[in-house]
Formats: sequence, C-alpha cells, structure tokens
Amino acid sequence: MGIITGQEYIDRINALEADVWIDGEQVKGMISEHNAFSGVMKSQARLYDLQSEHAKSEIMTFKSPTTDNRIGTSFLEPKTKEDLEKRRLMTSEWARINLGMMGRSPDYMNTALMAVYAGAEVFSSSHPQFANNITRFYEEASENDYSFTHTFINPQTNRSQLHFEDGEKIIAAKVIDKNKDGIIVHGARLLATQGGITDELIVFPSGGNLYSKDFAYAFSIPSNTKGLTFLCRESFVYSNSTFNHPLGSRFEEMDTIIVFDHVLVPWERVFLYESIECVNKLYTETSFYPLILHQVVSRQVIKIESLLGVAQLIVDTINISEYQHVQEKISEIIVGLETLKALLIASEVNAKIDKWGTMVPEQHPLYSAINLFPRMYPRFTEILQLLGASGLVSIPTEKDFLSDKGSDLHTYLQAANASAIDRVKLFRLAWDICLSAFGSRQILYERFFFGDPVRLASNLYRGYERKALTNRIHDFLKEMK
Amino acid sequence: MGIITGQEYIDRINALEADVWIDGEQVKGMISEHNAFSGVMKSQARLYDLQSEHAKSEIMTFKSPTTDNRIGTSFLEPKTKEDLEKRRLMTSEWARINLGMMGRSPDYMNTALMAVYAGAEVFSSSHPQFANNITRFYEEASENDYSFTHTFINPQTNRSQLHFEDGEKIIAAKVIDKNKDGIIVHGARLLATQGGITDELIVFPSGGNLYSKDFAYAFSIPSNTKGLTFLCRESFVYSNSTFNHPLGSRFEEMDTIIVFDHVLVPWERVFLYESIECVNKLYTETSFYPLILHQVVSRQVIKIESLLGVAQLIVDTINISEYQHVQEKISEIIVGLETLKALLIASEVNAKIDKWGTMVPEQHPLYSAINLFPRMYPRFTEILQLLGASGLVSIPTEKDFLSDKGSDLHTYLQAANASAIDRVKLFRLAWDICLSAFGSRQILYERFFFGDPVRLASNLYRGYERKALTNRIHDFLKEMK
Amino acid sequence: MGIITGQEYIDRINALEADVWIDGEQVKGMISEHNAFSGVMKSQARLYDLQSEHAKSEIMTFKSPTTDNRIGTSFLEPKTKEDLEKRRLMTSEWARINLGMMGRSPDYMNTALMAVYAGAEVFSSSHPQFANNITRFYEEASENDYSFTHTFINPQTNRSQLHFEDGEKIIAAKVIDKNKDGIIVHGARLLATQGGITDELIVFPSGGNLYSKDFAYAFSIPSNTKGLTFLCRESFVYSNSTFNHPLGSRFEEMDTIIVFDHVLVPWERVFLYESIECVNKLYTETSFYPLILHQVVSRQVIKIESLLGVAQLIVDTINISEYQHVQEKISEIIVGLETLKALLIASEVNAKIDKWGTMVPEQHPLYSAINLFPRMYPRFTEILQLLGASGLVSIPTEKDFLSDKGSDLHTYLQAANASAIDRVKLFRLAWDICLSAFGSRQILYERFFFGDPVRLASNLYRGYERKALTNRIHDFLKEMK
Amino acid sequence: MGIITGQEYIDRINALEADVWIDGEQVKGMISEHNAFSGVMKSQARLYDLQSEHAKSEIMTFKSPTTDNRIGTSFLEPKTKEDLEKRRLMTSEWARINLGMMGRSPDYMNTALMAVYAGAEVFSSSHPQFANNITRFYEEASENDYSFTHTFINPQTNRSQLHFEDGEKIIAAKVIDKNKDGIIVHGARLLATQGGITDELIVFPSGGNLYSKDFAYAFSIPSNTKGLTFLCRESFVYSNSTFNHPLGSRFEEMDTIIVFDHVLVPWERVFLYESIECVNKLYTETSFYPLILHQVVSRQVIKIESLLGVAQLIVDTINISEYQHVQEKISEIIVGLETLKALLIASEVNAKIDKWGTMVPEQHPLYSAINLFPRMYPRFTEILQLLGASGLVSIPTEKDFLSDKGSDLHTYLQAANASAIDRVKLFRLAWDICLSAFGSRQILYERFFFGDPVRLASNLYRGYERKALTNRIHDFLKEMK
Repeated sequence: MGIITGQEYIDRINALEADVWIDGEQVKGMISEHNAFSGVMKSQARLYDLQSEHAKSEIMTFKSPTTDNRIGTSFLEPKTKEDLEKRRLMTSEWARINLGMMGRSPDYMNTALMAVYAGAEVFSSSHPQFANNITRFYEEASENDYSFTHTFINPQTNRSQLHFEDGEKIIAAKVIDKNKDGIIVHGARLLATQGGITDELIVFPSGGNLYSKDFAYAFSIPSNTKGLTFLCRESFVYSNSTFNHPLGSRFEEMDTIIVFDHVLVPWERVFLYESIECVNKLYTETSFYPLILHQVVSRQVIKIESLLGVAQLIVDTINISEYQHVQEKISEIIVGLETLKALLIASEVNAKIDKWGTMVPEQHPLYSAINLFPRMYPRFTEILQLLGASGLVSIPTEKDFLSDKGSDLHTYLQAANASAIDRVKLFRLAWDICLSAFGSRQILYERFFFGDPVRLASNLYRGYERKALTNRIHDFLKEMK
Repeated sequence: MGIITGQEYIDRINALEADVWIDGEQVKGMISEHNAFSGVMKSQARLYDLQSEHAKSEIMTFKSPTTDNRIGTSFLEPKTKEDLEKRRLMTSEWARINLGMMGRSPDYMNTALMAVYAGAEVFSSSHPQFANNITRFYEEASENDYSFTHTFINPQTNRSQLHFEDGEKIIAAKVIDKNKDGIIVHGARLLATQGGITDELIVFPSGGNLYSKDFAYAFSIPSNTKGLTFLCRESFVYSNSTFNHPLGSRFEEMDTIIVFDHVLVPWERVFLYESIECVNKLYTETSFYPLILHQVVSRQVIKIESLLGVAQLIVDTINISEYQHVQEKISEIIVGLETLKALLIASEVNAKIDKWGTMVPEQHPLYSAINLFPRMYPRFTEILQLLGASGLVSIPTEKDFLSDKGSDLHTYLQAANASAIDRVKLFRLAWDICLSAFGSRQILYERFFFGDPVRLASNLYRGYERKALTNRIHDFLKEMK
Repeated sequence: MGIITGQEYIDRINALEADVWIDGEQVKGMISEHNAFSGVMKSQARLYDLQSEHAKSEIMTFKSPTTDNRIGTSFLEPKTKEDLEKRRLMTSEWARINLGMMGRSPDYMNTALMAVYAGAEVFSSSHPQFANNITRFYEEASENDYSFTHTFINPQTNRSQLHFEDGEKIIAAKVIDKNKDGIIVHGARLLATQGGITDELIVFPSGGNLYSKDFAYAFSIPSNTKGLTFLCRESFVYSNSTFNHPLGSRFEEMDTIIVFDHVLVPWERVFLYESIECVNKLYTETSFYPLILHQVVSRQVIKIESLLGVAQLIVDTINISEYQHVQEKISEIIVGLETLKALLIASEVNAKIDKWGTMVPEQHPLYSAINLFPRMYPRFTEILQLLGASGLVSIPTEKDFLSDKGSDLHTYLQAANASAIDRVKLFRLAWDICLSAFGSRQILYERFFFGDPVRLASNLYRGYERKALTNRIHDFLKEMK
Repeated sequence: MGIITGQEYIDRINALEADVWIDGEQVKGMISEHNAFSGVMKSQARLYDLQSEHAKSEIMTFKSPTTDNRIGTSFLEPKTKEDLEKRRLMTSEWARINLGMMGRSPDYMNTALMAVYAGAEVFSSSHPQFANNITRFYEEASENDYSFTHTFINPQTNRSQLHFEDGEKIIAAKVIDKNKDGIIVHGARLLATQGGITDELIVFPSGGNLYSKDFAYAFSIPSNTKGLTFLCRESFVYSNSTFNHPLGSRFEEMDTIIVFDHVLVPWERVFLYESIECVNKLYTETSFYPLILHQVVSRQVIKIESLLGVAQLIVDTINISEYQHVQEKISEIIVGLETLKALLIASEVNAKIDKWGTMVPEQHPLYSAINLFPRMYPRFTEILQLLGASGLVSIPTEKDFLSDKGSDLHTYLQAANASAIDRVKLFRLAWDICLSAFGSRQILYERFFFGDPVRLASNLYRGYERKALTNRIHDFLKEMK
C-alpha cells in the first residue's frame, strides 16, 4: 500500500482501542475525539497528508524497491550523500509545519527502525532468526506506513550508581518467562511520548544500568496488545483554541508510563533477547546513533529557525531593534542556528559508507550538536522571555477580543507595528514556546532528549579520536631544547 | 479597627463588586467564589488571619500610636534597626506560608505606601495639600488594613527610545481634565497584579518615558471606582486540586490591564499632579526604593530557601546525592541563598536615619541583590529541571491514584526513599515551580520585578559611590616612578 | 622570482633598516639578531622554507599564470571550491608549525591583498588609476613574496561616540597634503603587529569613525620609507630558551605604534584617496571580509586543536581522566573545535562566485565563527588553568634541571605517566599558552582580532537575512483562528 | 620585643641564609638584594613598618597580655565581635598598600598559627605535649613577630583517586624515622609561597589523600634548618621598574618546591604526629577554617575594590562611560564587591564563641565567599581586558618616554582625560593585573587559593545545614490534599 493519508492514520489508531488512561479514566470511544489527543492527532494526520501532495512527493517519498509503492522517505536507508540530503529535506518539510515542536513526528521512530534494519545482521548474534525478524518487520512497517512510540528508560526509582533492583520486586520491565509463542514481559518503562496514538510500540534495551540478561530485549508490538497499558500524565491541552494556545492545542504529544502486565511478545516480533553482548553491539556496531541524530538535528535546526523568527517579530513589533543588547540576543540565536546547520552539513559532507553499506553521516559533528542543543534551546527561550517582557503576560483570550471590552483591547494593546490582535497572537505564540506548561515541557524534553547532559559530555570525551592532536604536541615538545 | 481577619478581607472585596473581566466575561457575584480567584483570595485571607495569631502577634503587628489599635507591621515606619528586623521577620513569616510565591502579598504595597508617607513632605512641592493627603490616607489605610494593587508601567506599544505618544491618540493613561472635584484620568496602565481583589488601586508615575505634565500624577482609589476596569489575562488556575497544582491552585495572583474610562479621582486622593520635578523627587529624595527593596529581598530569601528545600528533597528522594555535579548544583543554590541573606543583613547593619527620620537600610547591598535575583531565580528553577529530569513529566493526577490503575502507580512510581504518592507530590510541587504556566510566570515576574535588568545595571552604575576607590588607584599610580 | 627562502626573507628585512624603536633605543644593525625579533623572524623564515619543500609544494604554491613562477598559495585568488580547500590546507600547514600562535603569519595579509586585488575594480570609483595600482602591486608582491604588516585602527584617545578630532591637533594619521609625487600622511596609527619585520606596510581606512575625506585613504609602502617609524611595546621575549618559553621565544610577533612624520606616499602606491564612498564599497562590494575570515578561521581551527592536544596531554600526564568534570571540560573543547571546523566547511560547501569572478565562502558561517572564537579561546585557556592547577607554577627552568638540584627535580616532579622533564616541558608549554605575558597577549589578541565583540554581534544582527523565517511565523500566525 | 620594623625583618631573613635555589643557582649573599626577592621583601618590610606608625597603631597592634609588648593584630585571638572587626581593619590596612596582591602578607599565616593556638587542646589527642608546644610557639612567634611560609599540598604526581604512593619511592614528604631529638622528614611538598624569605616554615597535614600515619604531622621549623631546600620557579620579576611592572616589581612572592632531605624536626616544634584522628580534628574541631577565611575574604574585598578602581579609571580615561555594555561590566564588579563585603559582614554579625572561647565568624557566608571568589576574580580581570582593549598592548616603557621618541608618545598616546604618561601608567597597571605573567599567576593563585573549586563546592554541600528547609517543604507537601 505505501504511504497513507491522515484519515487512514486516524482511523487505524481509533480502531486499535488501545488501553489508555488519563486523569483517572480510561479513554473510551474514538481517541481522536478525546480532548487530550484530538489536536495532536490532527497535526500528525496533516504530516501524512503532506506525503501525498504532488509538489512534495519527490522529497517526501521514494519508490519501494520490492513493491513499487511510494514509501515515506523517513524509511529510506541512505546509500548516497544525496539520500542523506533528501532525508534532511523531508524532516525539514515536516518540522516546518509544527515549528519543530513535534519531537516525535513519525520520521523519528521510522529512522530508528530503518537504522536497526540497516544493521540487522548484528542481531543474529542474539539469535539467527532475529535479523530476519527485523528485516521482515521493517518491510511491513514501511509498506504500511506504521507509526511508533517507544521507550528507552527505566523508572526513576533510584538513581544511585550502586543501586540494582533485586529479583523480588519488579519495577523496571523485564522478561519473566518465555514459551513457544514468545517472551513474557512484566513491569514498567518510561516515557512513551505519543503513547496510545501510534500503531506500534517499539522497545529497545535501556542503556545505563544493564546488569541482567532479563533486561536485554528488543521488540515491537501493536499498541493494543493484551496487557499493555498507557498511563498518561496530566494533559497540557488546557485550551482547544488555536488562538489561545497555538502550540499546546495542536502539538501536545503526551508522555506515558508503559505498564506491561504479563505481556506476550510473539517470537516473530522479538529482535533481541538474553544477549547483553548484542545490546552493546546494537549501539556500537550499527550506525544507530548517527542515523538517528541526523534526523534529530535536522528537526532542531527548524526549531531554532522558528525561535529566531518569533524573536525577530517581537523585536519588529514593539520596535526595540535599536538596542544593542537586543541585537546581541538575536545574534546569539543566529550564531546558534548557523552552528547547528554547519554541524549538520559537516556530518553529511564527511559521511561514509559503513560496513553494512549504509551512507552514515560523520558522528562527531552530530554528537557535538547534541551536546550543544540542550543548552541552546533553553537559553533561546530565555531570550524570548527577555525580549517579550510584560507583553508575555498581557495575553487576553480569543473571547476577550469578542467581548464588550474588545474595543479597549484593540486600543490599548496595539503595537508600534501591529494591530492589537496580531500582536497578541504573536505574544501568545511566544508564550506557548517559552512560558506555558506545553512550552516548558518542550524545554525539559530538549534538555534530556538524548539523555543526561553530563553523560553526553562523557560519551563525547570517550569516543573522540584525538591521537593526532596529542602527537602533534608531543612533536612540538621535542623541539623544546 | 486595626488588623482584619481573612474573612473580613474576603467580605470587603466581595462587597466592592469591582469591574473585572476575564475570558470575555464580567465577573458576577462573589469574586471569592470565582474559579480564577478563589484560591489566591483564600491564601491572602490566611495571611490576614496570621496577624491575629497570638504567637505571631508580637512580630506581625504594632500598636498604633494614635488609636492604640494593633496595626500590621507592614505599615510600620522603621525608626530603629530593630524595627527593620521586625519588618523582615514579618515578611518572612508571611512568605514562608506560600514559599515566597505571592509577590504581591499585602506587605509589598503596604511598604510602598509607608515609604511615601515617611517622605510625604516631598509631595508638598507638587501642592501643599498633597503631603496631608498622603498622611491622612496612610492613617486610614493602616487603621483599616487596606489591601492594594498598583501599576507602574505604560502599555508596551513602542519601546523605541525615540517614541513619544502624540496628543491625539490616548493609550497610556493620563490626566485629560480637572474640575473642582478632582482630576479626570483616561487611558490604560499595566500590569496590576491582584487587580480586582484588593480594596484599592494605587497609581504611581511611570519611571521611564515621562515627558509631559499630564503623565505626572499619583493617587489611590477604591477598586470599584466608576470607570475603572480590570482586564485579566488568561487564568493559570488550570486545576483547583492542591494535589495537582499545589501552587497554581492557591497563589495565582493574576495580572490585569487597568482601563481608566474618564475616571474621576477626588482631590483628597491625589498625591501628586502636574509636577515632573516632584516625580523625580519621589524617587530621589524619599527612601522609597531602599524601603521597598528591603521587603522584596526579604521575600526573595524565603523563595530561594524554598527552592533549596525542594531541590534537596528531590536529591534525597531519588538518591542522587553522591554525584559531584548534583553537589555542585545544590551548592550553587546555597551560595545564592547565603549571598542574598548577607546582602539583606548588610543593608540592615549599615542602615541610617534619613532626613525624614526614617531608619533606612543601606541601598547598595539591596540594589546588588535586585541585580542578582533576576538571574538567580531562573537559574535555580533550571537546576530543579536538571535534577528532576524525567520525574517531572511522570506526573499523574490525584484522580489517577484513585482509579483502577492506582496500584500500578503505587508500584512503578515509588522512589528510593519515598512512596509513589509522596514522590509524585514532591515532583508536582517542583513542576509547579519550574515548568507549569504558573511557575513560568513566576520566573518572568522575578526577571522583571524591579524593571528591565539592563536598566537595573545602569542604575547601579550611576548611583554607586566609588571616588575613594579611584583615588586609591590614583595614589598608587603616583608611586610608579 | 616567485617564492623565497627563509634566508632571503631575513636578508631582505635586514637590508631595509627600518626605523624601529624599542625600550628607548633605536634598533641598530641586523634586526634579525635583536633579542626581541630573532625568534619570531626565525619562525617566519621557517614558514617560507616550507613553501619550497617538495612534499608540500603542491599545497603551498601555485604556478603564476603570467610568469610560470611558483607563487605562495596565500596569494591565490580562489576560482573554485577546490581553490578554497587548497587555501585552507595551506594555512593549516603553516599554522600547525606554530600551533596557530602566529596570528600574522604572511598568509593573513597576503589574503587581504589578494581580496582587494580580486575586487580592484571597486577602487576605480576613487580614481580610474587606482584599480591598476592595486593590480600592478598585487603582481609585484606575489611574484616577490613580499611580507606585510598593516594597521586598521586609530589611537584610542577617546572612545566616546560623540568624539571627533578637530582639525588643529593631529593624532590619528591623515592626509595633510598632496603634490605631483604623491600624498603626504601625518599622524599615528595602531597596532601594526610584526611592524618593522616585514617588507611593506599596508594601510587600509579605519572602519568606525570615518568622518572626513582626509581619513579616506589606502596604500602600501616599504617599511623603510622616510618618515615612517615603528614604536614597539615592551617585548615579551623574557627568555630565549625554547625550554623555558617555548612559545614566547619563537612566536612573539610584537605590536607597534606607527608614526607617520610627513610621509610621502607615491601615487603609484595609492589605492584609495578622498572617496568615503569608496571606503564603504571596499567593505560591502568586494569580498574582502569573507575571504580574509576564511584564512582566519582556518588558523583558529589549528589553534584550538593545539589547545585540545595540550589539555589532553595534561589529563594523561597527571592521570585525571576519570573525573567527570575533567571529561566535561575536554568535551567543551571538542565541541568548540567541531563547531569551528563545521562552520569553516559550511562556508566552503556553500561558497559562490561573486560578481568579480572570485569563489567566495559563505559569509554567515564565518561571521558566526568570528563571533564565537573571542569567547571560546579565552575559555579554553581557562580550562588549561583549571586542569593544570599547581603544576602550572611548579615550573623550574632549563638551568634548574642542569644544576646540583636537578636530581631532586627529577624525583619530585615526575608524573604518573611522564618523567619530570617531560612533564615540566608540557606544563611550560601550557603556561606559555594560558599564563605567560606572551600567552595573555594572545588571549587579548583573539578577543579583539576582528574588532570589538559587541560591534561584531551588531554586524551579524544587521547583515543576516531572516525574512524567510519571519514570513514562516507570519504564516503560522494566520493559522491561529 | 613585640612588633618589628621592616629593617629588622630584612636583616633577620638575610641572616638566616636559607638554602634557596633559583634558575640553576643557589642564592648567595643577602637575599634581599637578589633581583627576584628585593622588591617583595621591600614591600613586606613596609607592612611591618606600618605597624609602628602612630596613626595606625591602635588598629595594627594590641598589647600582649603577658609581656605588655605591642603585638601585631594578626596574632590576636578574637574574643569579641569588636576583635573580629579590628582584625578585618588590620588586614584591610595592609592589603590596601599592595592592592590586595600579596596573598601571603604575614597576616595570613599569623592567623593560621593563631587559629591552631586557639584550639590547641585538640592536639593533645596526638600527644599531651603537643598542645603545649603550640602554645609556647605561638607566644614566641607573636612576641618576635615571626614571618611564615607554609605548604599544604603534595606533589601533583598522580591525581587519580585510586592512586596511593607505595612505600619504596618517596615523593610526598613523610616521616621516615624518629629519635630522641625529633622526627625525621624526607620528601617534597608544594607550594611554599614566599619560601625562603620568611623566618619559619609551617607544615600542616595535607587534606586530600591521607592514608598512612607517616603523613600525619604538623610542625614549624626555621627556614635555615639543615636539609631544607627551597626550589624556586622562574621569577616573574622581568623588570625592576615600578613604571614598567608596577606590581611584578614589588609583589612577586615566588612559589617554591620544598625539599626535605632527612630533616630533623625537634620534638618541641612538633604539633602533631602519627594521629590521623587528630588531623581530622584539626579541621573539624578547631575553628581553623572560619578564622583563616575571615582574613582571606578581608583581603579579597580590597583586591576587588582595587580592580573596580582600575576599571573605572580606564572608563574615565578613554571616555567610554556612556556605553551600556560598559555600565553592565562595571556593575558586575560592583555587585561582586557588595556581595563579598556583605558575606564578610554577615559572618561577623552572626559570629559565635566556640568551645575554646574564641569568637568565630559564621562559616557559611565565608564558605560561600570562597566558592564565589575563584570565579569572580578571573572574570573581573577579563572585564579589565575587555575595557582596556588595544590600550593594553600600547604600552611603551619608561625608557621610551625618556628617548628621542618620547614626544611622539606624549602626542599620540594622550587620552581624552589624561596625559600620555598617566594613561600609560594606568594601562601598565591594568596590564600587570590582567595580562602579565605576574597578573596571570595571581589569577591562578586565586582560582586555587582554597583548593580545587570542585571540591570546595562539595564541601559546602556536605557541611550546610538545611534540615529546616526540607522540613518546611515536607510540611507544605502535607497540605497537598
């Protein structure tokens, strides 16, 4: 079938009737009608529709080598630098629609699946069948344009380095049994963003504290698998008005705790099991990280562009362009944007074919980007606060403008270069980026997107090749006397 | 009568029936029952009740020299260093109840009124009667325990230095006429926090762009004065549950745009009019700023203490105390707290009697504090985000715990050193400080509490006495050869 | 003749006998033997020699289109992206020898001359002959491998924006007369690095405060022109030992004040005169800045690489690799290095042919680099201090090791992974980067290399194209409601 | 005898003829005439002379309770808050003369000796006689106005946490034997500032890696004790001209490696030996740290005042006061200064009598100060660089002004508000603070004055009482539902 439409996406998710709980109640009926999910599902649907738009089709899709169907570019395994560029353009296209605010638009997990598929051979070390499972599933997923949520981390019970869960009390999800049909998983995992509104849930082994074979597993299962529950946090869709909450009303992806209650994962959906060695290989012998980071940074570039656009519009609207500190703040965003873009381009320019035949972007620029972004994004939202100032709390609602007091608002909230309504729209958007519960959750999300910032720095430290540089200094030292 | 009870406060505000608009509708009936105001009014009432508590009475009140009534300490003009200390203890007492989150608890504006009263003589230069007006009103207000909102700034229409409003289009409120009964004010002012839930509105001249006598005025009028309207921003009381939104449900003070529609301010309530010279004197010849800053910094100390408490509890709860970067982050808060406390103490130790006979805390330490705090507070909320991490989005609601899935939550969200429910409470509180719309508005509020940070630095630069220091260097230079 | 040898460079400079003053005395005899200049001239000579090395010749030179001589690549006008890459490799090659510490190695000014030559047509607007003068002089200079110093700024008499020199008192150098032979220049200019040890002095119009035609000029004259004096600052060659001062003894380039005492500049050496319009065109219509920045950033990359090498060797030597904060500090340098490299590559990837037919690197990445570097370099030297700690003051001299106490030093200064002598060499090198007078002057130099950092940010603000981004937000705002 | 004169200090040190090596040679003859030491010894002598000045005597001295001699206030054990203030004024008085640039003026170590004397009882746990030894020695030292150097740390051989020296190879100084006369110490210690130009060397146990009783010792011995050698680093007295190097020529205190070659420490000079428990008590049961920090912070306040004076004079001299970023930078120094001063005052206001009867300043404000200063001082020198800019390399020497080119310098280096010579003096001073080898060593010194900044933060984390604050949050959490 190939790419789907937005409506097909919505129908498919509604039909699943996954077990989703929110604010003490189970979601009943069509989840796409539920207040907490209708906005984001509509936004997701729009992404799917874009794939079919004639003008975008060349970038957004490619022809399946096996079925001739048009497949979403996010599933494309890059074989050339042009493929990498195409993938970047695809992600940019999708991100622009939501200003980069949908961290889990389908391209993210599609890329992850593509990356394990590209290095599927590695999984044979876990079991000869597992590489086939991945390959087969990748084909099914790409041909059907599946959507995914996933979970990377264990519950935050105890973060001490010396803490290991004992065998009695199960908290972090693990394999507790297996039988002829599959493996039995029990326990919880965090934090599945878009949990409950995707076709499938992919589970990869958690990095950090892997100490027992029971935690070495990877698989994908439909969201409505028996025993699988999604427990939502409080929804930040406090208003459905796109005027009031232009981002929160449309892009609130929700984070969920995943509970596995004796869930049976059928063997054909198991990708990895019992092999700690294979877990390590997954992250070191496949190009999983660089491929996924390439998608991530592509989206982050658009997000920074959006912040720059909003910041500049605030400057124009209230006429503060002349102030040197304002110029410095905008310049700081510009430098950040140029830096991210350059790192992305450098990763493509220096891309190389890996041992599985995939064209892989150079990892160092991407790791550098992912070390910078968690500091950059919060800082740029801070700049929005500093530029917007009192304008960010002078935010009447849509209904206020329609009320008897509307004319007062039109008079008193007009700006140097905008009508009151245009100015309030702009400041509402800025508020939803830098101050609302939705916006703040985005900040937290970007801080920890790729894990603990401290650990990210250590990873870069460990993985960075610098022998040539210390050798240069050694040579220089020899010249001293 | 002297100090009032919380119930008296509530009754009095309800009786006013001020003209307050929110989300397109006028508040009807008792404002203390309105969803957007009930929490904060209850919290404010509790502050009033505290004044009558026997154990606190010595700190919270003093005996009126004229009527023998017990008066709230926030109205006390300090004559000794002990008075300053008493004032600090009073503010601390109130702030502790709300973790320092009520920036406009009554002591703030009461202090402002006391400060102009202490230097009332200055206003005689505007009109001989005005000093009397202030004195008389101060007595009325303190004896009746009035509450106040106020507004300092003009609408943010155009922030260019070269912009002046022309005479035709009235945006910033100004005096457009006068008659035998008083002056007529028309236009808008920003941003009256607690607007509509206080007895009175005090208006002081806006600092910055004063260029015409029509903008030189100061007065106080009841909140229900004819022609006076309070236009609210969106309310951030998204939940009334103290479990879900422990701060937002109780301390959301609301910010309002004030509209004056040909408001008559009676002469006996006019403190300043037409005299630009007197406006300047207000800020340079009275001890307005140091007295008010003393209250402000006293509250901010408690707020930082609260953040330190929350941060340390997170560390204890998820057991991350061993990490060096965690220790550094907590130490950073400790150093900030000690700094603020020391600046406050230094201002008291070096306090002096001013020419009006008031004991005034030294201004330099307080100005230094107010330069530091707008950077400190956002940074410390950032530290909460960095410590809390994924725990800050694993925040199910009160109802979730009561639902069929409650037992899952109890199991999977337990922490190293706390039950799931205690841990979620703690992280909910942290979330309401550093991530919710309420918390973010607090961050913005503290950033701009005392004006544009860039201007604050310039003010310190201009006002700081450093002749002795440059002289020392001059002397040293003479020793060079 | 084409490229010269190091000896030819030295002989030529000695023969000039320019008027150079240092510490109250005029340099007499061969300047290459003078304590303050011998080290740096030897280092410069080595660069020239490298051009003739067979293995490097392909990168370091190109064949003159007119004479078939081998010309230094720093004179090459890039016509293709490959040319840009070749230029980068040339600069890297030279910079590696001195760890990037020679900010004024010949490629810097050669690039500047090439850049004005490439846009020489612009100077016709000043006088039809001037374009020819430049072209002819570029050919002479490149064919003879001239070296240059130059001066960009006026004396720092008064930095107020409102200050203009009056006509009476001449401080900043200006044209005071002209005759049939040329123009007469009188006054002073700052700060000619390598002043007195180059063949020629190039003078470009100072940016900032151009307000009179008398200051609109550009020319090149031999260093021994009559009336031209170079006044040196204190020399930082405190030791000639490469053991003691591995950098200062070899790369101290000296900064000089240039005094023009009625200097006659012959017409054939005048490039610009009297035309303020032409001054502006020089910076806006030629590709002067992007071409020069490409050289600058190429060198800066090598400098950061050197710091990373030194930092890592310190870590290895005293065995502090395990500390998380050490890993973070090294990672910070890595991220900085990757960022600079990526910006440089991005500028080449997006290079375009300008209207004069030159292949010009994209300016935004380069301007971003030049905004980052003045913060990056001081920070990375700070990291060296933090890593080196007490080791940076445990620095005995070469003679100490040879003395009776040498054996004590060998014992007590040994490191985990290095002998005492190797360890002291390393820490001496680090000291000469981050703590010596030489090293600190490098820090100052990089802070202001491309002008006042505040102005750099404003320039970026003004020149950056962002209409597409604000339009995107405009479109998004339209979707609100 | 009591306080001495400067000449007595110089004579006494010369008479010692300690074994001091510098640049491969042993210091012969009078050390006060040696180029590397003459300046600093003269500056130290001036401090001693100040004690006898009539006008300062009240602050600078107190009457010995036993001998009626006038004793230097730095030896005064504070019994009241007034004593603390007197001590602060004494340190300020001394520091002002050298702009706070003599980190080891005699008050520093005198305070240290006083602090162990005040808690001498603690040393009885090592041996009953040791408390007496300290008491007796304190009396001798204070009555004779001894000067001291000391050493806190071990050689930086291997900084890994897992590294322990084995018994074979002695690097860090330790007790290798004892006999009836005393203990035998062998090995090296770092970094004795002013080593060789003080009467005595005090050695305290190194904090960090204490793992064997052989390293648990404390004592004081004359600088000319047999077997004791001071190995100097390179001297930073590159010029004796106070015009050229106003600070380096006078305040270069030198750092030395101490070598103990089988040094016999007589029993009466042993304060601690073999008792690891006593080492811990020294730092936890005496008020050693708060007393010493009180001196340190008192000096640091003066140092920051000096930087503020220099910074402001630069601003005035080149007329840059109007720039907002200049105002921000100066304000940053002001806020830093006010903070340090306030922390110091707070420590005195909250001082308490400890169990030994000493009036001890509150430790938390002082620890906060010592956490801030290592970041503050480097930052403020950076501000000097940013303000001074090119003026900091336009620094001709004294001889230049006297040469034939002097008149050019007078013309071209004049400033808006200063003659050329005054301006160069000022910039020379600034250069010697923020750019010279002397100045940079000061920066490094302040960074590590009280140990590794990372460890300082951890110490504050561990020692800070915050139970009341977490309890407050616990109470607040109880109110949630």
